[in-house]
Amino acid sequence: MSADLPDPPVAFEDTFDGLYGLEVLETSDEEVRAQVVVRDAVKQPMGLVHGGVYASIAESITSSATAVAAWRDHGQIAMGLSNQTNFLRPITEGMVHAHARRRHRGRTTWMWEVDITDDAGHLCAVVRMTIAVRDLPQQPPSA
Amino acid sequence: MSADLPDPPVAFEDTFDGLYGLEVLETSDEEVRAQVVVRDAVKQPMGLVHGGVYASIAESITSSATAVAAWRDHGQIAMGLSNQTNFLRPITEGMVHAHARRRHRGRTTWMWEVDITDDAGHLCAVVRMTIAVRDLPQQPPSA
Amino acid sequence: MSADLPDPPVAFEDTFDGLYGLEVLETSDEEVRAQVVVRDAVKQPMGLVHGGVYASIAESITSSATAVAAWRDHGQIAMGLSNQTNFLRPITEGMVHAHARRRHRGRTTWMWEVDITDDAGHLCAVVRMTIAVRDLPQQPPSA
Amino acid sequence: MSADLPDPPVAFEDTFDGLYGLEVLETSDEEVRAQVVVRDAVKQPMGLVHGGVYASIAESITSSATAVAAWRDHGQIAMGLSNQTNFLRPITEGMVHAHARRRHRGRTTWMWEVDITDDAGHLCAVVRMTIAVRDLPQQPPSA
Repeated sequence: MSADLPDPPVAFEDTFDGLYGLEVLETSDEEVRAQVVVRDAVKQPMGLVHGGVYASIAESITSSATAVAAWRDHGQIAMGLSNQTNFLRPITEGMVHAHARRRHRGRTTWMWEVDITDDAGHLCAVVRMTIAVRDLPQQPPSA
Repeated sequence: MSADLPDPPVAFEDTFDGLYGLEVLETSDEEVRAQVVVRDAVKQPMGLVHGGVYASIAESITSSATAVAAWRDHGQIAMGLSNQTNFLRPITEGMVHAHARRRHRGRTTWMWEVDITDDAGHLCAVVRMTIAVRDLPQQPPSA
Repeated sequence: MSADLPDPPVAFEDTFDGLYGLEVLETSDEEVRAQVVVRDAVKQPMGLVHGGVYASIAESITSSATAVAAWRDHGQIAMGLSNQTNFLRPITEGMVHAHARRRHRGRTTWMWEVDITDDAGHLCAVVRMTIAVRDLPQQPPSA
Repeated sequence: MSADLPDPPVAFEDTFDGLYGLEVLETSDEEVRAQVVVRDAVKQPMGLVHGGVYASIAESITSSATAVAAWRDHGQIAMGLSNQTNFLRPITEGMVHAHARRRHRGRTTWMWEVDITDDAGHLCAVVRMTIAVRDLPQQPPSA
């Protein structure tokens, strides 16, 4: 398949990722790096970065990388199956750094591990993302 | 312990939960109900609600309910340990409905299961949240 | 599809489930009950039931129930995608009781939640099982 | 703390790990290698290694390594909190190889990632283990 992914129905700056400020630095079929600036809008009330932000970053960057490759290579679509986030250490300032590495590329499932670190390089959270790759559905998609 | 939780350093409307529009409908030590209005700002580019939104809702409502009880009963603090979200069916319009039920209250760990449904009552995602309950730290907290 | 599942290549009493003593009490497309007698052979060295036993029971009973239904209804095969086990309370004697409930039946994925309890009815572990349902492969199976 | 771990109440060869044939090749505070010979007794009825075996191996080797270090350094005990196993590719013969790497050592929680491979070096399953480290309880332990 050589066609590019069709233009998405919602422009990036209007999406959830645009809202919380996801910045993708580099992306490929096997590795993605991204970051988010820490500010009140990504924190929970106690002043720590909200755990959902780590889950969201990992979800976005691995789904996108999988979707681009699945469409390009096989005309298939990608959809998240599970997001397993473990929290190790809080982040309160600076930048949230995300580094995703693909661990498995199967015919129907891709799996990625994402490390979340702070400015000092401490491992603060880890996310395991499982993503389904499927042919374009005749019927509306469900897992 | 009879004191209320101290005022949090970040006002709700300035937090991540305020940003994506979390509305908590009812909360107790054992059960929480909440909702989020579906609009572009909670979607990914293809027009589906972003998986990170389900993870974030579950994280917020179970952490808050645990934190309130742990502080009130034992002067302890709560922090998320893990968030395991599985995606079953996309939501594209209407409301995201979340219903959290506590499954375990241990001395050091609470566990909740959260069902995410759409307006038709279909189960669209499930989240298992594990939350640590700890004495106020002498040192900065980490898991 | 009306054919029964073909005879499996390994007889139950020779399998891993036979080894640790899985007893399935009742099974259907939506619910399974099973048990294992507690004895040294299912414990870790400190005298507690080994966490892997809970994971194994849940894996077996949900995979089997899914496999039977997928074959009967669509001539499809089932394979485990993920097993998420959380430990809440140790078991040291009596019986391990497992109760599986199906939460989702999609076209390509089934999801079950399994509660593990002791003789007193305490919730001791929970397992979320995700199982892929696929057409018979032309090539050797992988996720 | 300089004392060795006390003799465990159940001898290894009588435990679950003895039953399915766990062989620990090398172990330290940060890394463990182990293996299990593939034979019918570790398979499910279709002739594939049972998913519970991967979960059990990971559980054992990371819990033991954590327990030894926690007792030696702080007189503390270790107990598994969660076991998240994802299945990528079946194993049907040869040896199950496990390689555990510690990703986090916190004051109350350790986290390990375990890769399961076959004789050809293919990644067949991954396990994320979270283990609680606690002071010796006054009351019977629970999470």
